[in-house]
Amino acid sequence: MSLSHGKLELKKTLIAFQGELGAYSQSAVYSFFGRDTVKEVIPLTTLQRVFSELCSNPETNPSKPNYAVVPIENSIAGSVGETFDLLLSKDVKIIGETVVPIRHALVIHREADFKYIKKVISHPQALAQCREYLDAHQWEEIAVYDTAGAVKIIRDQNLFDTAAVASELACEIYGMKLAKTSIEDDHSNKTRFVVIVSARDASSMPSESTGSDKTSVIFSTKHAPGSLVRALSVLSFRGINLSRIESRPIKSKPWEYYFYVDFEGHVKEERCRQAIEDLESQTLELKVLGSYKRAI
Amino acid sequence: MSLSHGKLELKKTLIAFQGELGAYSQSAVYSFFGRDTVKEVIPLTTLQRVFSELCSNPETNPSKPNYAVVPIENSIAGSVGETFDLLLSKDVKIIGETVVPIRHALVIHREADFKYIKKVISHPQALAQCREYLDAHQWEEIAVYDTAGAVKIIRDQNLFDTAAVASELACEIYGMKLAKTSIEDDHSNKTRFVVIVSARDASSMPSESTGSDKTSVIFSTKHAPGSLVRALSVLSFRGINLSRIESRPIKSKPWEYYFYVDFEGHVKEERCRQAIEDLESQTLELKVLGSYKRAI
Repeated sequence: MSLSHGKLELKKTLIAFQGELGAYSQSAVYSFFGRDTVKEVIPLTTLQRVFSELCSNPETNPSKPNYAVVPIENSIAGSVGETFDLLLSKDVKIIGETVVPIRHALVIHREADFKYIKKVISHPQALAQCREYLDAHQWEEIAVYDTAGAVKIIRDQNLFDTAAVASELACEIYGMKLAKTSIEDDHSNKTRFVVIVSARDASSMPSESTGSDKTSVIFSTKHAPGSLVRALSVLSFRGINLSRIESRPIKSKPWEYYFYVDFEGHVKEERCRQAIEDLESQTLELKVLGSYKRAI
Repeated sequence: MSLSHGKLELKKTLIAFQGELGAYSQSAVYSFFGRDTVKEVIPLTTLQRVFSELCSNPETNPSKPNYAVVPIENSIAGSVGETFDLLLSKDVKIIGETVVPIRHALVIHREADFKYIKKVISHPQALAQCREYLDAHQWEEIAVYDTAGAVKIIRDQNLFDTAAVASELACEIYGMKLAKTSIEDDHSNKTRFVVIVSARDASSMPSESTGSDKTSVIFSTKHAPGSLVRALSVLSFRGINLSRIESRPIKSKPWEYYFYVDFEGHVKEERCRQAIEDLESQTLELKVLGSYKRAI
């Protein structure tokens, strides 16, 4: 599915993500679909709920989302294991990806002032990512469950002595004030998100090659020497570049793994179609998650 | 290094792990070295500190540990990313591995009774792993930082209405009472730990092939089609089985990865020695973490 196709349909679409309003996942929704075209977002508490709602029956669930945008890997912290596990266990397809730079801002109450700050609150990972800036000040640090949630706390409790580390979007959504932007240590920190739909919805969204695509698959291999290399050779033999490999445990079989592989190309290209045909014979189980326009 | 060699030297050794006294990592220390032979363990708050202390200078740090035992993967939750990153960045060698079954017990104060329980405290992951048992009761659940730490809280605060989800070892160490054993949903849940030493200490510990070994390496590849498959082929070409592959982001280069590979055999075996020689020519960077007796 191309971006323009997404925009075309968005008048009636609901897009789900995990986290509070203003979470980085919401920035990813805007990054992929375009902020002006998104009518309604659905913030949900857990990734499990995002996938369940996406796959629910629209006849019994009027707020069933049409799309969801979920984080899959961060350029510093690595893969989001739970997303990988849900991509396997739920009947979903990937129709796109987007990359969001993680820029942390220092957010204060709209009526507060920088000089009142005594405490700073955020998700522990966000606090850790602003170590240099925070160490240069002497504020007490308090961990909370979510970056955007920290801004919400400042607004709801009218805190004048507390700052939050969060996105500029969270600052804007809760009507608070930017005290400082880009306070993260590493300005190259990015998160990659995938855009997913239920398999049922995907069947009415034909995906076409754009000439710059990527295909995602999950497979398990026989427990025998060389079986992973044989499966991957199906790609290299055809000159198809592997852009990502990730392994996740098979929960019922300790020390056996599912492999998540992204490779260049689209299933509608002949060499990719053939590679998938060969993968079927070289693997125990194979799930094709979809082909979509690459963002990186 | 063989287990017997470890036992031989243990009279004067200090062994570090991450967590409170009674953590599952302490069970891993006993599992590898033998409980009777371990004289002194050093619980440290973070994995970062475990690696730093292990690599510190014994002349300036009298409590420098000789060994550390760190978790590397769980059969359900997957890899411990931080351990992989520290294995790359710190100058350490792996000299062994051990697998510990994760059996959660319900622990109460030694003077309390099951019927007094109103609350249950533990690490959120441990609470999640006992979902079926906890759902069958109506206790309030409270997340704390550590499983063994939960038992310590019950002892230190003399809580009679609160139970902890933790190991039997934690119960014993803090002198508390077992209310119920094996309350985990999945009895096959296991964690694999590796036993590490500083590279300097490793140089005086010659490792010999036992006939059932595994070798761990970390490498990065050229950013070109087929480069990972070519590197792995060095092993499959020699009939060497790959037992594990894991990828971790290269922090300075978004969307490029280090690969962590375990394969069967010992560097003192000719085919493994040759494979490593070839890996050097097929990779950009290569770090050999060590060869050791396999536990799985």
